[in-house]
Amino acid sequence: MKYKIITISRQFGSGGRTVGKELAEKLGVPCYDQELIEMFASKSGFSAQHIEELNEERIKGGILPSVSDRVERSLQYTLWQKQRDVILELAEKGPCVIVGRCADYVLRDRKDTLRVYIHADKEKRAKRIVDVYGEREDAPLKRIADKDKRRISYYESFTPNKWGDAENYHITLDSGELGIDTCVKLLEGLS
Amino acid sequence: MKYKIITISRQFGSGGRTVGKELAEKLGVPCYDQELIEMFASKSGFSAQHIEELNEERIKGGILPSVSDRVERSLQYTLWQKQRDVILELAEKGPCVIVGRCADYVLRDRKDTLRVYIHADKEKRAKRIVDVYGEREDAPLKRIADKDKRRISYYESFTPNKWGDAENYHITLDSGELGIDTCVKLLEGLS
Repeated sequence: MKYKIITISRQFGSGGRTVGKELAEKLGVPCYDQELIEMFASKSGFSAQHIEELNEERIKGGILPSVSDRVERSLQYTLWQKQRDVILELAEKGPCVIVGRCADYVLRDRKDTLRVYIHADKEKRAKRIVDVYGEREDAPLKRIADKDKRRISYYESFTPNKWGDAENYHITLDSGELGIDTCVKLLEGLS
Repeated sequence: MKYKIITISRQFGSGGRTVGKELAEKLGVPCYDQELIEMFASKSGFSAQHIEELNEERIKGGILPSVSDRVERSLQYTLWQKQRDVILELAEKGPCVIVGRCADYVLRDRKDTLRVYIHADKEKRAKRIVDVYGEREDAPLKRIADKDKRRISYYESFTPNKWGDAENYHITLDSGELGIDTCVKLLEGLS
């Protein structure tokens, strides 16, 4: 591998997680995605479910947050630090693919890291989430809008970067246009 | 070619123009870059030099523009329309690569168009512009900052898009990290 680590940031419903899994399989390295949550849980003392809830929660409070918002913010910040530590340790350990969790930013100073962003237009993502996760009470476009808001809020609260800005990444790919297989092949060629 | 047209938007100093020229050569299709200015000139009645000046000029005036700012804005808008018409005509004519001039936005509804954005970090761009264009009175980082401002202002005045946002493009590439040759090869594989 030319790059020891590949970070994959992705829009909800873009298939970025699948790209990460398939790429890791082709390269014969581990892919950390949901597994990261378990690692954070054992590091932090939070339960895996609580971590997922905190990660998914929008960063609340604005300039004058309430006491409960401040408690939640502080928990989120503690969790952010633990997640960052786990990602830094994983990067030291060996070659891997890391999906999400701001790993692109956490590992920004490592020269051996390829930073990737996968996105797609809303209609294609809406179709994909119904295919993959099934129907829910909320309409798919609403689910996408909610998740986008949460991911942007999380990323932009803990990094100085703008979510989705091409400059944060070495390569960004529209999986809706190019297809998942092409994205995996392109990245395999680069790795 | 899978795509009839490839548009290349690029940061100043990223080598995006070179990527476009080399890609077009490999694909055996014309690359329109500086040639576009000549076409706009013959369409619009402006001289090529005046067009370049207007394209490079920041869109001035804010909410209460002066009379001269309004005249310039109006000229820029006329020129924008002429440039858009030439790009639409070229796209009808035959396969090609088009560099800059908001062609990604002008051709956004065509399914046969691959939209590409090439960028690189400021230090690498600064080095490249000195290698390619030589030393100037202004420091390279200042020249880059000025050009970035002008391109952003132009793009965001005439399109509703945000310059450099990954969502505008099917693929974005960091030429400073990946190298010009790799960018060309990747795009040739996709085209």
